[in-house]
Amino acid sequence: MENASAPPSARTAGTLISSLDITPEELQLAVRNHSMPLEALRYAITPVGLHYLLIHFDIPSVDVARYELVIGGHVTKPLRLTLDDVKARPATTIAVTLECAGNGRALLQPRPMSQPWLSEAVGTAEWTGTPLASILEEAGVRAGAADVVFTGLDRGVQGGVDQHYERSLPLADASRGEVLLVYAINGWPLPPQHGFPLRVIAPGWYGMTHVKWLRSITVTDRPFEGYQQATAYHYRTSGDDAGAPVTRMLPRALMLPPGVPDFMTRARFVEPSEQVIEGRAWSGHAPIVGVAFSEDGGESWSQARLEDSFSPFAWRRWTFRWDARAPGEYELCARATDVEGNTQPLDQAWNLEGVQNNAVQRVRVLVGRADATQVPADSR
Amino acid sequence: MENASAPPSARTAGTLISSLDITPEELQLAVRNHSMPLEALRYAITPVGLHYLLIHFDIPSVDVARYELVIGGHVTKPLRLTLDDVKARPATTIAVTLECAGNGRALLQPRPMSQPWLSEAVGTAEWTGTPLASILEEAGVRAGAADVVFTGLDRGVQGGVDQHYERSLPLADASRGEVLLVYAINGWPLPPQHGFPLRVIAPGWYGMTHVKWLRSITVTDRPFEGYQQATAYHYRTSGDDAGAPVTRMLPRALMLPPGVPDFMTRARFVEPSEQVIEGRAWSGHAPIVGVAFSEDGGESWSQARLEDSFSPFAWRRWTFRWDARAPGEYELCARATDVEGNTQPLDQAWNLEGVQNNAVQRVRVLVGRADATQVPADSR
Repeated sequence: MENASAPPSARTAGTLISSLDITPEELQLAVRNHSMPLEALRYAITPVGLHYLLIHFDIPSVDVARYELVIGGHVTKPLRLTLDDVKARPATTIAVTLECAGNGRALLQPRPMSQPWLSEAVGTAEWTGTPLASILEEAGVRAGAADVVFTGLDRGVQGGVDQHYERSLPLADASRGEVLLVYAINGWPLPPQHGFPLRVIAPGWYGMTHVKWLRSITVTDRPFEGYQQATAYHYRTSGDDAGAPVTRMLPRALMLPPGVPDFMTRARFVEPSEQVIEGRAWSGHAPIVGVAFSEDGGESWSQARLEDSFSPFAWRRWTFRWDARAPGEYELCARATDVEGNTQPLDQAWNLEGVQNNAVQRVRVLVGRADATQVPADSR
Repeated sequence: MENASAPPSARTAGTLISSLDITPEELQLAVRNHSMPLEALRYAITPVGLHYLLIHFDIPSVDVARYELVIGGHVTKPLRLTLDDVKARPATTIAVTLECAGNGRALLQPRPMSQPWLSEAVGTAEWTGTPLASILEEAGVRAGAADVVFTGLDRGVQGGVDQHYERSLPLADASRGEVLLVYAINGWPLPPQHGFPLRVIAPGWYGMTHVKWLRSITVTDRPFEGYQQATAYHYRTSGDDAGAPVTRMLPRALMLPPGVPDFMTRARFVEPSEQVIEGRAWSGHAPIVGVAFSEDGGESWSQARLEDSFSPFAWRRWTFRWDARAPGEYELCARATDVEGNTQPLDQAWNLEGVQNNAVQRVRVLVGRADATQVPADSR
């Protein structure tokens, strides 16, 4: 722990991002898409507008009067469902935490070129819809089915391929009881940015799975080879590496940064005091069983208090009483572990696409008075 | 107009941003705050979650059971109002376009260091609240009053000053009938990010005016000299320049980019066809009377069709039938003019803070087939 007698400096307490500069292309993505401001960790259910969003192409315009979801492919009875047809089916509401597979990408060095997320591309919502399994059952999946392909109405070019956004799930995963065709978020109809009129929610999986603006669901008799499935969203360490597909969320804990921020540097100032640090932790693999807290950048760890889980597919709140009475500079960390023993690394192993980054969050905090001597004159 | 016979290139059709790289501090702001994706220009009223947001410090947590708005200062009868007190007063709903004063900042060169907006830090909402004037009347503004100061619950450090966010309006401006104390957006209670439980809306003014999370309204007998009023939000061309305060929104037109995007470069691809280009235009000074459209980067202009205004304080829809049958590369521009003769510059004059940038939007479009030959292999 640093308890230096020298006055802390906001410059050193500022960013923990790679010193590499962000390109104009990354900025274009960063101003379109957005993460969840970390103070929104205080809400069990993220208010609409604070939930993270990644939209590959453009939000499509949908005329719901003419909208039909087409279910077909390797089935005995293809279906066409209107939004009202889907709403008339049995409804389920589940609280689900979604995280972008590329969360943390901008913290890697060298930085993979794509949406430049820091650590907060996450959110938890109450999603209402109808189980996909019963629709697949009604359509009559034929023997030999392999994947269930979800195709969105959104279209664009990625990696040189003109495409509608589409992803698949193996039939067994698509048929799980918690996989829903969703038409409401937090009790309200889906807003355009969350996939109006229908999207899929596959609890536990990284964000790329939950295809928005669904136009079709197609059962295939062989593995789906679409761009977003076979090319993108793989953990690869080199261009020659066939890689492993990205599937379920690795464990992660995030904390609500204590104190108050500096506008430009986002440095945090805390008055000497006892602080209750709060945050949330989740894993798409297994229930979270522990969150550890460090005030010294991960040199030493203490167990945080875990609150009861309110949904098997949502984050769990944790708190830690932090003694912040001694002025100085601290690097706060939180580290989640799930019941399968998956835990967060202290340092991130690099990969080509910058996916599955779940290194521990690091929040630099200055305990002391927030005044002009601590903040660079050029920050405003 | 360029109708080059050489095939268009997505690299040249990509960003129009300054080639200067974005700093890590700017990225931290860019992932927290967000602009309105340009395709949301199709909505007269921006859905919650698509409206731009700039939050200087952290979104505060408010216990509405203990919340009171304090009205005081140079008045005869200070007031304390609960949220229910405010909701019990006469209610008005107004559609208002808000735009950040720093919209367009990242297009300046050299780029002023702050929130790195491109062109889309804007949104239009239906705000419901009660006129501020009647509250000021009830509080009894005393003779010699100068400004009305709005102080938020949000606190942080900016420019070396530990502060609550606060801005003022001259009494005459604060007393205008359209200035509201607002508790609802688009028919719903304010979400945290838009200022729950109460904010001010001063139609026509740039975004910094509409103070969120109001904790007090204070009438002063001299000009307010707070940081966000006297130091920040000035149009200055050098550090020695006293500058002019930022007030009302300059005119601007934005278009919904046609065609489909490339994920990484945001280059636009349009199939050879006739296109109806649509957009919105607004000014905080006076009604919009014209929008001009150019397909050649501003060399030649045609008048777009302006639709009727639906609110004196909201943007106005415009359309233009664009003949995009000839393959090639185009630079589309739109330019708004208000009835006072204010119009958008083709090139932006530089200023220190990067405020009041209303240069015409430029959208590069490739008319032709969106295929692999047109997109750099490294974009994904």
